[in-house]
Amino acid sequence: MFHTTNSPVKGRLAGRSLAVAVGLASLAMAAGSVQAQEQQSVEERLAALEEKLAEVEPKATGDEGFSFNTYARSGLLLNGDLQSAPGGPYLTPAGSVGGAVGRLGNEPDTYLEAILNYKQVAENGTKSHYRLMIADSTTSSNDWTAGDGALNVRQAYVEFSNLASFSGIFEDASIWAGKRFDRDLNFDIHWLDSDIIFLGGLGAGIYDVKFADNVESNFSLYGRSFLEFPSDIQDQDITSNTDNLILTADNYFGNVQWTLSGMKAQDNDQRVVGGALQAAETGVHTMLAYHGDSFFGVSEGNFKVAVLHGQGLGAETKNIGADGNLHEDAVSTRVAMYGTTYLSENWRFAPAILAETSEDRYIKGDEYQWLTFNARLAQEFNANFEMQYEASWQTMDLETLGYDDRNAVDGDYSRFTIAPTFKPQVGGFWNRPEIRLFASYSTWDDELETYAAGDPLGADSDFESGQWTFGTQMEIWF
Amino acid sequence: MFHTTNSPVKGRLAGRSLAVAVGLASLAMAAGSVQAQEQQSVEERLAALEEKLAEVEPKATGDEGFSFNTYARSGLLLNGDLQSAPGGPYLTPAGSVGGAVGRLGNEPDTYLEAILNYKQVAENGTKSHYRLMIADSTTSSNDWTAGDGALNVRQAYVEFSNLASFSGIFEDASIWAGKRFDRDLNFDIHWLDSDIIFLGGLGAGIYDVKFADNVESNFSLYGRSFLEFPSDIQDQDITSNTDNLILTADNYFGNVQWTLSGMKAQDNDQRVVGGALQAAETGVHTMLAYHGDSFFGVSEGNFKVAVLHGQGLGAETKNIGADGNLHEDAVSTRVAMYGTTYLSENWRFAPAILAETSEDRYIKGDEYQWLTFNARLAQEFNANFEMQYEASWQTMDLETLGYDDRNAVDGDYSRFTIAPTFKPQVGGFWNRPEIRLFASYSTWDDELETYAAGDPLGADSDFESGQWTFGTQMEIWF
Amino acid sequence: MFHTTNSPVKGRLAGRSLAVAVGLASLAMAAGSVQAQEQQSVEERLAALEEKLAEVEPKATGDEGFSFNTYARSGLLLNGDLQSAPGGPYLTPAGSVGGAVGRLGNEPDTYLEAILNYKQVAENGTKSHYRLMIADSTTSSNDWTAGDGALNVRQAYVEFSNLASFSGIFEDASIWAGKRFDRDLNFDIHWLDSDIIFLGGLGAGIYDVKFADNVESNFSLYGRSFLEFPSDIQDQDITSNTDNLILTADNYFGNVQWTLSGMKAQDNDQRVVGGALQAAETGVHTMLAYHGDSFFGVSEGNFKVAVLHGQGLGAETKNIGADGNLHEDAVSTRVAMYGTTYLSENWRFAPAILAETSEDRYIKGDEYQWLTFNARLAQEFNANFEMQYEASWQTMDLETLGYDDRNAVDGDYSRFTIAPTFKPQVGGFWNRPEIRLFASYSTWDDELETYAAGDPLGADSDFESGQWTFGTQMEIWF
Repeated sequence: MFHTTNSPVKGRLAGRSLAVAVGLASLAMAAGSVQAQEQQSVEERLAALEEKLAEVEPKATGDEGFSFNTYARSGLLLNGDLQSAPGGPYLTPAGSVGGAVGRLGNEPDTYLEAILNYKQVAENGTKSHYRLMIADSTTSSNDWTAGDGALNVRQAYVEFSNLASFSGIFEDASIWAGKRFDRDLNFDIHWLDSDIIFLGGLGAGIYDVKFADNVESNFSLYGRSFLEFPSDIQDQDITSNTDNLILTADNYFGNVQWTLSGMKAQDNDQRVVGGALQAAETGVHTMLAYHGDSFFGVSEGNFKVAVLHGQGLGAETKNIGADGNLHEDAVSTRVAMYGTTYLSENWRFAPAILAETSEDRYIKGDEYQWLTFNARLAQEFNANFEMQYEASWQTMDLETLGYDDRNAVDGDYSRFTIAPTFKPQVGGFWNRPEIRLFASYSTWDDELETYAAGDPLGADSDFESGQWTFGTQMEIWF
Repeated sequence: MFHTTNSPVKGRLAGRSLAVAVGLASLAMAAGSVQAQEQQSVEERLAALEEKLAEVEPKATGDEGFSFNTYARSGLLLNGDLQSAPGGPYLTPAGSVGGAVGRLGNEPDTYLEAILNYKQVAENGTKSHYRLMIADSTTSSNDWTAGDGALNVRQAYVEFSNLASFSGIFEDASIWAGKRFDRDLNFDIHWLDSDIIFLGGLGAGIYDVKFADNVESNFSLYGRSFLEFPSDIQDQDITSNTDNLILTADNYFGNVQWTLSGMKAQDNDQRVVGGALQAAETGVHTMLAYHGDSFFGVSEGNFKVAVLHGQGLGAETKNIGADGNLHEDAVSTRVAMYGTTYLSENWRFAPAILAETSEDRYIKGDEYQWLTFNARLAQEFNANFEMQYEASWQTMDLETLGYDDRNAVDGDYSRFTIAPTFKPQVGGFWNRPEIRLFASYSTWDDELETYAAGDPLGADSDFESGQWTFGTQMEIWF
Repeated sequence: MFHTTNSPVKGRLAGRSLAVAVGLASLAMAAGSVQAQEQQSVEERLAALEEKLAEVEPKATGDEGFSFNTYARSGLLLNGDLQSAPGGPYLTPAGSVGGAVGRLGNEPDTYLEAILNYKQVAENGTKSHYRLMIADSTTSSNDWTAGDGALNVRQAYVEFSNLASFSGIFEDASIWAGKRFDRDLNFDIHWLDSDIIFLGGLGAGIYDVKFADNVESNFSLYGRSFLEFPSDIQDQDITSNTDNLILTADNYFGNVQWTLSGMKAQDNDQRVVGGALQAAETGVHTMLAYHGDSFFGVSEGNFKVAVLHGQGLGAETKNIGADGNLHEDAVSTRVAMYGTTYLSENWRFAPAILAETSEDRYIKGDEYQWLTFNARLAQEFNANFEMQYEASWQTMDLETLGYDDRNAVDGDYSRFTIAPTFKPQVGGFWNRPEIRLFASYSTWDDELETYAAGDPLGADSDFESGQWTFGTQMEIWF
């Protein structure tokens, strides 16, 4: 039933005629070229070469046809017993509600995105871009992970740009449909492995509607699936599905970005959360951000700062509309900020802050507050080597009221990592790939170990209140 | 055990020598080119450029080496409550036995095929083509579908053509082996998402054996796996496996195609179907088709018409040999027809008919009859926009005798869709990609809701006897 | 939590400025080129073309940017009843401990590796190579195997070479990190589908440290995961995980290779094997190999011979560190040898031997001994066709002491295959792709059928003590 052939004109006879036609054309050209060579002037041959090379070049470089992009990381994260240590930027109790800490020397997984693009230009100049992203995630170190891996398709969409028939405020607009990560509502604090904002799912939209010289907007409708949630207070095995539909206007005034989303998940109020039927059915979300092209005005570099606020289903401030367990009264406010600069010729510095306060999040009366300071420092030694340092400090006060069997905790977590790093070309925070060795020391308040069963902190006797971890990792994107 | 290294000559020392050799060669060429440039005449340099560019071009365009093909669709299909609506061309009771209705505005899934090709030309001129197809299917709108997706390999085969040593009636023949969709027994009525005929599986074959100017044949052996079918009347948990082997001759006389297949699945008569041991062990299948290069002789365009007939295991007329539950006395006859043409400068029209009658299909005495009329109409507005309309009407009379807990039904289904459509270049039915918005109204006889539990029709109170659905979708192939 | 965006500079405004900059640059270049053409001399235009083509060529050929590699096989293996026959080089009892027999006409699966490479060259000349390998394995012949397939990521690593800042003994060194098959500890006896040695997992290392003209070494640390092994003698459902860390020095003295590995899996002695707690926690492994560039000195061709020895966790001599069930006293010694040569102008010959003796392998006092002789012979007929013949004889004496419910067996297995083979260009053992037909006869001692339940030998009444199998298969690598 799912089968669809990949071209309706591939019928044998159609294909045959086409092949013959192409064959004859090629023959004609080949014959022509031999003869032509005798007759053509140098000028003509140069012009022919220039034209042909101009056709071939975009296909070789991926500006037309196929191209390949990637994000990937893969590493060993070990504890003092030489065994895999649990980890990841979201390993603390605050991590369960988005509170990431530094990622350097703190990633136990192989995670990768293989992105296959295909770009076409129509005769009328309209461009189209098909993007397919396949991703995988596993913590197994083995070379056969059919049982542990998670290969899946995260994106499959088309986007049209330079539309021949678009004019006025739509002249530079692009339109798209399919499953995707939003082009613009998708930027991160790299060192925390946390997006500042992320919008993804299945839908359609338009980018770059230009109202004035410095005023542009994007509009989109995304759907997300809420699958198999409990919908009967008496019986946890009875489940329902619904869809969260998210309508977003994303607006730009020079360096300022202001985003507004409204969302609705019909019948999500039938969802049982914490034994009650008070899950949100609607939500709103907004973000005000500034994209700076210096290091907070004091030196060369860049910075971003954003304030996000959401209510109901919008109270998941980062992954818009992705959390269906949110309470109808949930309110969250998040602040995110980072910058990068050079302190001297070979010292780079990138501080970051991420913090959130959230109330009535899952259960009426609960309260989640956390704040992370992070700083990455790098000392460049030569063409291929630099030392990287990262320090994180996180404080949290989570009053969960027993949601998801989590206990209330109040305490701090600190982490410091040193990472000798090789790269093809040292220079700046964004150069990849990197090959790292690293050692980390982390320490935390005992109370944090009581948050939830199976949590990394306090998971076993070797991992209590403080520990050393070390390992090696590669990271690449292109 | 499954591991196989990807090249037996990759041993380090072998690799080393090769690398050195290549390195030296490159060096020589580089040095040579500097010197040469001083000495070479313009004529020589032009000739060198022309030769080199002729080598590079097929690799850049994918005529040699790697190339990428795709079929993909992804969309949101919503009901009046803004929730995912069930759907798909096979949503009616007749759909369970192949009776598709129109697909426009009727597809709830993300389905995609990523096709990786690698083409080589041997020194003696023989060509080889390796094709790998990875496909996925899911109805989840989320951007992480490791639990819901279905990534799998649908094709992995090699095909040789232009064989240097082949002559006589084999001069233009191609041979292949591996897992594949047949090259020629694989064409569809696009608007119903239904192949007219489909042959696929794992095997080997030969194409284009040329007996006379207008007489050619293909021959193939395909195997298909019948897995885990119940084989004990007392105990449904006892299962068996077998293989259905399908031998096919596919013959062409000008525009006429005549196909004959015989198949055998040893011990498939041990299969329990409807409480009895009467499943077919053998089958025959034939198709007579005409591939027209006009719109039924009355205007420009194309048309195809086919009559298919099968018995026993051959009684699944579309997917040859794919249904192991067929009764030993099963008999099916199917008719398929479609055409495309322009009605005026900017109106396109594509009518289609698909109908089948089938007896003793799964249970002695059952009877399945259904017929679908479909018409797609498109009005081209400008370079990037057209309105598409599709109407489907299906009538069915299914006497199932309780097979698979399905009740007998007799009734009609109708569907009408309107779809504003964007595309890079308007013109013809086969131009893709497309980005669509759509709204559909469908209505049906109440009786159809009683066919089977969990069926889309009548699944819930919002979906009874008639409903509106709407949404957005992209579709692409290249 | 797993989500990581694929570029930290993709924020919209950053992207925008970049796009504008590139756009302007292109414009300038385009304008320039028109003007330039008028002014440029033929010399300048030739030089520009030569330079541009030199840039484009490596991208078209895959020397830079994306390239694609593959190993794949897919075939039907049938018994006399026209049903799938069990098979594979590891189908005998000795196969359960690595004793492969010949693969020709003996492979029932579709197995494939899709390898996506991306190569970059930094301005300072340092090269990087990212490699992603996705693999699948299934014995289903169907074209939809979402339930039967095993798509997973086997490799994801980066390797740097030509490092600008490396000098001295590291001048030619490469470094890598991630999940991979080792570059050098990874060569096989192709005809047995058995590596002579294989090292894979997740780690980091350095290749080609050059101590003297003929003395080079590689050093690596690989981790492998031991997952979900029983760790409670009373309760098989209680399981533990650990990691096996493998430190290896791989050294070359001309054609001689000497490898030494030490490994440790902390707490693996808590593993329950055969009802006891005596699994190894550490291991050592060594290999001495010679890579010959003639056929054992007697004719043109090549040969390899290797002796491998391991203790404890090192007693899995082929897949270093991959077997966590090994006893703390386990000792294994393996010999591997093969060669290839031409016997005459069109007869090729490739004999191989693989043999192992192993004691206290899983249970104190057990003993495993097996030896395989194999020979592949090929007779080349014309540009595209050759006959291939393969004979295997294996003798085994396995005293299992009941490990894994396996019974002791002592006996022989023989197999002979004839395979008419098509290929694009006949010539040598390594030319692929191939399309084969084949028929095999195999026979064995009755006693071998008692080894283990569900074993291919004696699985059913058609498969006792001897049988014919036949089928078709493709095999390709590039």
